[in-house]
Amino acid sequence: MKQLLDIIRSAHSVAIITHMSADGDALGSSFALALALEQTGKKVTVFLEEPVPKMLDFLPGQHTIGENTEEVFELAICIDTSDMQRLGKRASIYTNAARKITIDHHTTNNMKADGLWIDQKAAAAGEMVYYLIKELKVPINREIAICLYTAIVTDTGGFRYSNTGPQTHTIASELLALEIPFADIAKKVFDIVSHSKMSLMKKTLQNLTLYHNGKTAVSWIKHEDIQPVDAQSDDFEGLVNVGRNLEGVEVSLFLREEVPGHYKGSLRANEYVDVARIASLFSGGGHVRAAGFSMNGKLEEIRDKLLSEIEKVL
Amino acid sequence: MKQLLDIIRSAHSVAIITHMSADGDALGSSFALALALEQTGKKVTVFLEEPVPKMLDFLPGQHTIGENTEEVFELAICIDTSDMQRLGKRASIYTNAARKITIDHHTTNNMKADGLWIDQKAAAAGEMVYYLIKELKVPINREIAICLYTAIVTDTGGFRYSNTGPQTHTIASELLALEIPFADIAKKVFDIVSHSKMSLMKKTLQNLTLYHNGKTAVSWIKHEDIQPVDAQSDDFEGLVNVGRNLEGVEVSLFLREEVPGHYKGSLRANEYVDVARIASLFSGGGHVRAAGFSMNGKLEEIRDKLLSEIEKVL
Repeated sequence: MKQLLDIIRSAHSVAIITHMSADGDALGSSFALALALEQTGKKVTVFLEEPVPKMLDFLPGQHTIGENTEEVFELAICIDTSDMQRLGKRASIYTNAARKITIDHHTTNNMKADGLWIDQKAAAAGEMVYYLIKELKVPINREIAICLYTAIVTDTGGFRYSNTGPQTHTIASELLALEIPFADIAKKVFDIVSHSKMSLMKKTLQNLTLYHNGKTAVSWIKHEDIQPVDAQSDDFEGLVNVGRNLEGVEVSLFLREEVPGHYKGSLRANEYVDVARIASLFSGGGHVRAAGFSMNGKLEEIRDKLLSEIEKVL
Repeated sequence: MKQLLDIIRSAHSVAIITHMSADGDALGSSFALALALEQTGKKVTVFLEEPVPKMLDFLPGQHTIGENTEEVFELAICIDTSDMQRLGKRASIYTNAARKITIDHHTTNNMKADGLWIDQKAAAAGEMVYYLIKELKVPINREIAICLYTAIVTDTGGFRYSNTGPQTHTIASELLALEIPFADIAKKVFDIVSHSKMSLMKKTLQNLTLYHNGKTAVSWIKHEDIQPVDAQSDDFEGLVNVGRNLEGVEVSLFLREEVPGHYKGSLRANEYVDVARIASLFSGGGHVRAAGFSMNGKLEEIRDKLLSEIEKVL
């Protein structure tokens, strides 16, 4: 940490970069650090691959966003990014900077840096940036607090994922004392549903079918239903949980016809079924209670193959 | 607080009671206090109006539940209850007890007690019980922590309602340090959906219609759709939010045909519309962004009356 602080203190121009498809943690921690470093008199620029998503457009610090990726910086700080490839078109900013710092909480990280700080126990990169700002002795104001809260609340699913630790709540307590609009933030990042996602939800509910005395839930979206609603990839997120959350269900299978005749399957279990093993039978994989696979064929055939394997372990 | 502690310390037999239709906060704080008082050697009995809901059947401390409402106690502690009527058949336990304590965080409370502790700033009764256990110098073990966490997480909607304060997170931090299964608890209390609720959700999505360039969402459930799914009153909770959470929506109207030809209407607004005023035009009322009313008539007529009023203020 001392080395990190020395590198930061000696730099005047700082670029902050994070992974592409930046989420609440990536953006929240980047803007929080940018705002804090600005307070110490540095020239700070945040570089993003895409525009800030509408869902996160309330984040303070967006005045620090820069466009000129040719500019050379004394220091580049890369946040929440495990791999150079995830920097996309902005990799050169990191490579060209005189000095480099990487701050990350992923399990694997192969970034090269003059200062490398990896903490796999941090629930969010936002937690690490919080500690860094503390070490830099920059007071956390309301704008920084909004960024850090957003980072932490999104990466912990609202303090619910198992990565949440006692320290997560301790930090949240300090941020709430700054009277941030935490209820509005949570509403914006968790509740608002796009029109395309709502259409997919509707189809998912319509198609939801129970098997094995209600222990297995299956639902699907056909390609012909995806096309007209202009669905984005993240619109599909969580649709497998519609079945999983139904009372009495142990295994939920969700099939998405990505291109005609080609299905992407998601499997979730609640208590005891090892869905990673089931997915592996179809060249897929994942975690014990959350796995996936891909398969060509007809919906009914794929469904029946899976159902027969699920039945064996219920 | 000193008076409260004195009353508690001098009692050997203690009855704990809470309001009927006990929720996570009512049950969690009751069992937490029961477990803590047991540790000090007291004989503690918790009296409930109904069985513990399935959703909360993981709560420790259920061995303290008693049935004999004729028993007379040295002390009765009433938790999270603003009014004697909410004690139902158990009111006599409170009345007959030699001494009485009331612990509550509601805005209005008209209970009579030898020790009355009302804290409207507490996010949950569970927060107050946490402080009380601390004052009693009883160590908070994992079982008590599970009860307190459940109380707090349910009454704050997962740390999201505006009643959540910095102290809420400070307490949560201490409870998480005891390695409680907080992710499982949140899943059980927030995610699991009953079959009847899923049917109502499906209908709500199917009927969802947008007006006023997508700023108003309307949905409804007809009496003929409620009957076959054996829906309970709390299955309807949150259905108005399906429309409210849709991107671009300002006002959401949900109509539930309670008996044929009689509708209960819920109104929600996101940013600026005063739905309490709209509800008041139809003899209803509520808060600025959450209100309700009742009306007899045909679905289309009621919908059109509301739409015309909503349109004026969009």
